[in-house]
Amino acid sequence: MGVVLYPGFEVLDVFGPVEMWANVPDFKVVLIAQKLGPVKSAQGVSVVADFDFEAAPALDIMMVPGGIGTYAELGNPVFLDFLRKQDQTTEFTTSVCTGSALLAKAGLLKGHRATSNKKFFSLAVSQDSSVTWIKHARWVEDGKMLTSSGVSAGTDMALGLVARIYGKDRAHALAHVLEYQWNEDPTQDPFAIQ
Amino acid sequence: MGVVLYPGFEVLDVFGPVEMWANVPDFKVVLIAQKLGPVKSAQGVSVVADFDFEAAPALDIMMVPGGIGTYAELGNPVFLDFLRKQDQTTEFTTSVCTGSALLAKAGLLKGHRATSNKKFFSLAVSQDSSVTWIKHARWVEDGKMLTSSGVSAGTDMALGLVARIYGKDRAHALAHVLEYQWNEDPTQDPFAIQ
Repeated sequence: MGVVLYPGFEVLDVFGPVEMWANVPDFKVVLIAQKLGPVKSAQGVSVVADFDFEAAPALDIMMVPGGIGTYAELGNPVFLDFLRKQDQTTEFTTSVCTGSALLAKAGLLKGHRATSNKKFFSLAVSQDSSVTWIKHARWVEDGKMLTSSGVSAGTDMALGLVARIYGKDRAHALAHVLEYQWNEDPTQDPFAIQ
Repeated sequence: MGVVLYPGFEVLDVFGPVEMWANVPDFKVVLIAQKLGPVKSAQGVSVVADFDFEAAPALDIMMVPGGIGTYAELGNPVFLDFLRKQDQTTEFTTSVCTGSALLAKAGLLKGHRATSNKKFFSLAVSQDSSVTWIKHARWVEDGKMLTSSGVSAGTDMALGLVARIYGKDRAHALAHVLEYQWNEDPTQDPFAIQ
């Protein structure tokens, strides 16, 4: 599975899910960006992209994080093309926070149900009005598309995907080892807006 | 504030706290390692150290993460010396997961109360028996030393430190923006062992 990074991504959007998924023995997590090498986060620290878009393997699971850098990528056709290309063969396409605005802009959420960060909800909505945008959700599963609410909600979605593939017991066991209190009900959302 | 990385660190140990702290306007977070540049995590992905030990600034807040690489650093006098040197002038010295084993090995927890990862608790205990090791705790504050339990508990400790400096309302507001359900009581520990 691969995370698609861009300058100004939010660190916990990436590393909550990476922590959960990398601890599943069958999963291998790689970081991908338009350019190989260090990518600077919204928090100022940098992480290393293992692959550029050309060298990236076909992903079984793709994850698009959010962050302040979302605004710039909404206008980056190379980035959006990469999402479209990968989505053709993914088993699951997922996002955290404003990552769903990027999936929507790429046209990948057309007619689907989805959610996004509560503080930037209108950014997601304005990308594609054919999406049923759900304001009250920790995360939303619609077919192969899993979109989560802001930042920390991504970790819960990541465990939701583990549960979807391997069952809830496996997800609970993983959360327990990592001492994580999983919010396992995607419809429970204490941060929902009206 | 600075996070001291080493090969084989656990990603969520680092990026849960970094997410919380980097979103406090007065905090600047830097990543430090013995060698400048990419440091490979236990999860296989790499992050970039902004400073090596020689160039690192004096830290107001130091954080030492855990991870499988802890074992190697317990035998690395250069690493342990760096922790001791920084601790002389920090306002707070903190750890997540098995990071407390490294603080203990460096002699920085002598006579203090502290906690550690539940799955590797004996590793911490065996470093310094003068420490009062607390098995039932999400995190432990003893003077300027804040140590947390495994992985995800670090995020709760990080908000605990924000509360300590700026008050609980500020920590709650930060958690709310990041859609994080803060486990705010450090004595509540659903993962405690007997």
